[in-house]
Amino acid sequence: MSEIKRVVLAYSGGLDTSVILKWLQETYRCEVVTFTADLGQGEELEPARKKAEMLGINPKHIFIEDLRETFVKDYVFPMFRANAVYEGLYLLGTSIARPLIAKRQIEIAREVGADAVCHGATGKGNDQVRFELGYYALNPDIKVIAPWREWDLTSRTKLIEFAEKHQIPIAKDKRGEAPFSVDANLLHISAEGKVLEDPWEAPEEYVFSRSVSPEDAPDEPTIITVDFERGDPVAVDGEALSPAALLTRLNKLAGDNGIGRLDLVEGRFVGMKSRGVYETPGGTILLQAHRAIESITLDRGAMHLKDELMPRYAELIYNGFWFSPERRMLQALIDESQAKVNGTVRLKLYKGNVIVQGRKSPDSLYSMEHVTFEDDQVYDQRDAEGFIKLNALRLRLLNRQQG
Amino acid sequence: MSEIKRVVLAYSGGLDTSVILKWLQETYRCEVVTFTADLGQGEELEPARKKAEMLGINPKHIFIEDLRETFVKDYVFPMFRANAVYEGLYLLGTSIARPLIAKRQIEIAREVGADAVCHGATGKGNDQVRFELGYYALNPDIKVIAPWREWDLTSRTKLIEFAEKHQIPIAKDKRGEAPFSVDANLLHISAEGKVLEDPWEAPEEYVFSRSVSPEDAPDEPTIITVDFERGDPVAVDGEALSPAALLTRLNKLAGDNGIGRLDLVEGRFVGMKSRGVYETPGGTILLQAHRAIESITLDRGAMHLKDELMPRYAELIYNGFWFSPERRMLQALIDESQAKVNGTVRLKLYKGNVIVQGRKSPDSLYSMEHVTFEDDQVYDQRDAEGFIKLNALRLRLLNRQQG
Amino acid sequence: MSEIKRVVLAYSGGLDTSVILKWLQETYRCEVVTFTADLGQGEELEPARKKAEMLGINPKHIFIEDLRETFVKDYVFPMFRANAVYEGLYLLGTSIARPLIAKRQIEIAREVGADAVCHGATGKGNDQVRFELGYYALNPDIKVIAPWREWDLTSRTKLIEFAEKHQIPIAKDKRGEAPFSVDANLLHISAEGKVLEDPWEAPEEYVFSRSVSPEDAPDEPTIITVDFERGDPVAVDGEALSPAALLTRLNKLAGDNGIGRLDLVEGRFVGMKSRGVYETPGGTILLQAHRAIESITLDRGAMHLKDELMPRYAELIYNGFWFSPERRMLQALIDESQAKVNGTVRLKLYKGNVIVQGRKSPDSLYSMEHVTFEDDQVYDQRDAEGFIKLNALRLRLLNRQQG
Amino acid sequence: MSEIKRVVLAYSGGLDTSVILKWLQETYRCEVVTFTADLGQGEELEPARKKAEMLGINPKHIFIEDLRETFVKDYVFPMFRANAVYEGLYLLGTSIARPLIAKRQIEIAREVGADAVCHGATGKGNDQVRFELGYYALNPDIKVIAPWREWDLTSRTKLIEFAEKHQIPIAKDKRGEAPFSVDANLLHISAEGKVLEDPWEAPEEYVFSRSVSPEDAPDEPTIITVDFERGDPVAVDGEALSPAALLTRLNKLAGDNGIGRLDLVEGRFVGMKSRGVYETPGGTILLQAHRAIESITLDRGAMHLKDELMPRYAELIYNGFWFSPERRMLQALIDESQAKVNGTVRLKLYKGNVIVQGRKSPDSLYSMEHVTFEDDQVYDQRDAEGFIKLNALRLRLLNRQQG
Repeated sequence: MSEIKRVVLAYSGGLDTSVILKWLQETYRCEVVTFTADLGQGEELEPARKKAEMLGINPKHIFIEDLRETFVKDYVFPMFRANAVYEGLYLLGTSIARPLIAKRQIEIAREVGADAVCHGATGKGNDQVRFELGYYALNPDIKVIAPWREWDLTSRTKLIEFAEKHQIPIAKDKRGEAPFSVDANLLHISAEGKVLEDPWEAPEEYVFSRSVSPEDAPDEPTIITVDFERGDPVAVDGEALSPAALLTRLNKLAGDNGIGRLDLVEGRFVGMKSRGVYETPGGTILLQAHRAIESITLDRGAMHLKDELMPRYAELIYNGFWFSPERRMLQALIDESQAKVNGTVRLKLYKGNVIVQGRKSPDSLYSMEHVTFEDDQVYDQRDAEGFIKLNALRLRLLNRQQG
Repeated sequence: MSEIKRVVLAYSGGLDTSVILKWLQETYRCEVVTFTADLGQGEELEPARKKAEMLGINPKHIFIEDLRETFVKDYVFPMFRANAVYEGLYLLGTSIARPLIAKRQIEIAREVGADAVCHGATGKGNDQVRFELGYYALNPDIKVIAPWREWDLTSRTKLIEFAEKHQIPIAKDKRGEAPFSVDANLLHISAEGKVLEDPWEAPEEYVFSRSVSPEDAPDEPTIITVDFERGDPVAVDGEALSPAALLTRLNKLAGDNGIGRLDLVEGRFVGMKSRGVYETPGGTILLQAHRAIESITLDRGAMHLKDELMPRYAELIYNGFWFSPERRMLQALIDESQAKVNGTVRLKLYKGNVIVQGRKSPDSLYSMEHVTFEDDQVYDQRDAEGFIKLNALRLRLLNRQQG
Repeated sequence: MSEIKRVVLAYSGGLDTSVILKWLQETYRCEVVTFTADLGQGEELEPARKKAEMLGINPKHIFIEDLRETFVKDYVFPMFRANAVYEGLYLLGTSIARPLIAKRQIEIAREVGADAVCHGATGKGNDQVRFELGYYALNPDIKVIAPWREWDLTSRTKLIEFAEKHQIPIAKDKRGEAPFSVDANLLHISAEGKVLEDPWEAPEEYVFSRSVSPEDAPDEPTIITVDFERGDPVAVDGEALSPAALLTRLNKLAGDNGIGRLDLVEGRFVGMKSRGVYETPGGTILLQAHRAIESITLDRGAMHLKDELMPRYAELIYNGFWFSPERRMLQALIDESQAKVNGTVRLKLYKGNVIVQGRKSPDSLYSMEHVTFEDDQVYDQRDAEGFIKLNALRLRLLNRQQG
Repeated sequence: MSEIKRVVLAYSGGLDTSVILKWLQETYRCEVVTFTADLGQGEELEPARKKAEMLGINPKHIFIEDLRETFVKDYVFPMFRANAVYEGLYLLGTSIARPLIAKRQIEIAREVGADAVCHGATGKGNDQVRFELGYYALNPDIKVIAPWREWDLTSRTKLIEFAEKHQIPIAKDKRGEAPFSVDANLLHISAEGKVLEDPWEAPEEYVFSRSVSPEDAPDEPTIITVDFERGDPVAVDGEALSPAALLTRLNKLAGDNGIGRLDLVEGRFVGMKSRGVYETPGGTILLQAHRAIESITLDRGAMHLKDELMPRYAELIYNGFWFSPERRMLQALIDESQAKVNGTVRLKLYKGNVIVQGRKSPDSLYSMEHVTFEDDQVYDQRDAEGFIKLNALRLRLLNRQQG
């Protein structure tokens, strides 16, 4: 075990990370610095401060930050420019939050002179990889502590015992096993494990917290507009909103209309398949809206190249390579394409459906003049013959020479 | 203008292709062979026979064929193995039918000794390309007639005049301009043009014919199962069905539940953007179901490779390159992956939504034993440390050496 | 035939473009503006001025420009950052020059108020496509004249007759057919057609003009160094050189050592295969040298992504899509990767071989400390076990579940 | 440490694997089965048998096999169908041999009832990964022993002491440190480490053993032909040869002419860069010859798709994923393309150069009739206008609408 002097812990204020805090003090005999971020998970942060103080953390070593705007502006939006989905469906809600947390931990470590960082992710999941690749990419000499891979508190009972022994307060509803594991931020909330482990069984309604079911959504549709500038959403229903405010607004609109639930089995980077149940209400609208505005403003060649590279880009984010050179390279390519992705999309939200109703743009490439069934002065239909003939030439030679 | 002796016309029996038939006889002074295929477009074919006879076609030169099973088995299903969508959304319903029609025209041309083939697609669209690339790929010496690129019947009025002059019967509702243009087969029905040309305006309800709107769909969900073997659907609700019967069944189930509508702007191969309104009810279920069964039976490496190549594969089909070597190569790759894509998916259909409720398979790669939050005997969490450390090594070196 | 008022002709001063000049005046009764560029083809430009004057061109409409530095800096070097080769071998010497000529023609057209541009490429080749895609991309309303596709001067005899009739001077050696067709610039010289049409026959020695044969090269090797900054070469043997001067220097060094010949059959964009014989002496060194400096300065993930996208990038350039959004997007991705591609490569040039002898860089990612066979303090070999175990996990599950 | 009963060791008969043999017996107290394969490394195998016997291995547990034909036919040739090179240059000589050894070890383990396998690769390199991914892919329950990651014989001195203590014979020239580490098979011989660790220093001549230097090669070129069937070479100079005999022949021809040396820095899968010096004489000819025969027999679309996927395919082999589903999928795609890759290539070998002199094929797609500068009856140059116009359309719209 390495010598550790000071460690920056990603601290939620919950039971698990409080146990980790104490375990770090006891095991490494080191000073613990806590970092608690508001990424829109929907929890008060001040209790985390109190709890950290109570557990003996030096007040100036308690970092509590509202990162919602940064999170949406510098992580969520760039990712949505790519229309990123993992394995055809997953909107990467957890994956995209980890790099930001990792980055702030490393920055704080530099600030307070810490030589280590610590996270509360288990040894089976993707999050440990995402945190640690972020740490190492930003500080190659940092020491990393992953208690779930090290300690022997391998059952709920042991964890509770340790908490009791160290006078860590335990909320009543945390004494028993949670029926599933949760991660939340402004983009999504995920549920996995335990009662959700059988992929043949549909999740019960109580699993969901950010959306009503399509069945319970209003019988009347809601019509909205989303405005885009340079590929990013900037207004809802004509009202300009900051990134986090905009996503918050879309979350509400979508959640109220039963939009954004996803139940899937995904391939983890560590090699096993797992089942996740996700709610990404605003993100689900955003993906459709962005595709719709691109459909009239993005050149076909640009769009197809983006589409071909998207799965790789999504895989990089899923696997934790946000700070890799290849992610940055792909981002440069994607961002290059978005300069004219401006305009407005009108959408109907109705019982789980996001229905594009219209798109318009000052930079629209859609040309009624060209596409019309009427006579036009801009397109010579005879050009099509030559176009086809030369596209066909290699196929004809192939048939003629090779049968 | 080339000398033509005998031409095989893709003949629907409708007004336009009847005018073409007559125009061919008159312009090329050649013998016309008609080919009418049932691809599930939902029209009687026998009237086409009568009309062809009436227009002077030799009965033995009237070819009428039910190609529905071939269409679904050899074209639709292989394409769905790839989860093919064009520009993120379009299920390629028109694109996938053209190669089969082209192939049969070329085969019939060989059979009856024709030296030319003819289609009724316009000079602005993708279909001319799809037909003609198919023709040339299968017979490099075939002559191709594309009347819409050649003749001067460039307005509805002229077309009607020509029809009247040549005693071609005109259905009452065909005298005026249709409000939009339609293409239909067992996979989908499309509408485009005229009243649909403004992409800011949502399509009116009367545009749709294969699905009720989500709003008009039943308030009670419908639960179904779909069984897969080697990547293809083989049964619905446990009942084994032939390919065409299965797709017909899914079309009904989906259409009744408001599923499968799509309104988009797409990039045509000929270079302009156009707006299409599509209904692909059964196909929409099929795509979700196939992804769901793959999610538990397909290895991650296999799936990600497929996902990366899908946009290219879809583009090839959209652009008319079904009979190209590169489409065959991609198909070989895709088919290689599907040997164990077996099992059952349970879906909830509800007001436009296709909600995966469960998936199971005798070949499932999902391992509860590995994924469990409980202790297990199969996964050593300490392995994750080495996995992360070596994945991080290049990123650490990068930071250390290049800052 | 469209009405043309003034046309900018890409004018070499040679017989063919002089005939075109005259033919334009006669056929379109329009004013001709000549544009002659020095791209390093190795010909005097002033004779072109005289000839243009003699053919009646207004002196202020004769544009003669030395574009060598721009050509190498803004076209050749960006392309070499990508290690671009077409079909595994071709260094794109002709392809990369066309966009610059097209761009200047359009700019001059704007300057002089011309409504058309004209080039001397034939209707079978790639160059017509490269010129015209460039024209249209930069000015969508420009009119394009491609005489070789329009006129009836379809044989050498007719061309000579036309020249004689219009008193166009004909150099003695231009009366007969050239034994092959040539294109040259600072990057390469190509030969194709006629005596080179049989791909089973090797080209005769007289086809080559920029390099001695490996057999005739010196028996003593030449050792050189090339320095790179941000992915571009900046010095040879320690001497800083401008882009064009550097490429000129490498051309000499390589040509003297029998380096840079290439004989291949390539797939043209218009659909046929053609045989080309190329000399790219300096470029051949540059490709090896750039790969060598990347090998120590470019992260593996970055390099592999670049390698995967290179064929697409090369295809875009070959096909004439330099000014397309997708080429710009790929360029953004490539350039993003080159910030630390700095350092020195030492090469041995010997009878056709470019042999990398050493590479070093202040930004080297190569770490002796890590790679050493001796004990080290930076790499824990036990990490490899976890790395392998988790990489293997999906393969083990696959075997266990699907056999 | 796991309980092991019987282990199959990849045994070369050399000092290192003899030490491993003994160490296994001592450490695991298990029965050792030796497997020694002739992959063309150029060593006698019978001494390995004697040594194994001497070290106490049961004669029926000594497996010695000549796998040269299998190696070339089922591993080398399929890989060359893809024109696989790693990081632009490396012909994957070591990488492609490991899967075959792993496969035979697993098969022998099954045969003799062994529960473990063992290899002699170090913990820093790629070979450990290649061996072990192969093992696990073929038998998910096999136990793997990697002595270099486990034992404490971490210096040459300790290794020699262990050998002496256990009466393992030590060849005189093995007492000291080897100046570099070697791997050899019929495709290549590699050298790395120690004296080669500085990438700025060129390798000395004594590092090479399969080729003369270009300088020392004959002054007269050697002309050869290679015949291909379905993408694989089948004859040299018209003489039909088995796969291994053919590669042996090419190795001799190339090595005598100074062909096939490569000195590079490559990115290892485990995350560091390393320097390798390779000789792949026959393979270097084979790559050029295969590209040349493809240049006239492979459709452009097929070739470009192959070229784009090649880096991924090469990466998979380099990283040890030969037995992965994605490698098999890519192989299916590649093999699909090779059905008509038939014909003959003529090559000049001269002082390090492989110069293609001609290619011909009964299935050639090269059409003189199309490509000729003379008048032809098969290509209408006016088609090019339409081809260009429609390819340009999206670029024109882009400029017009977005400037």
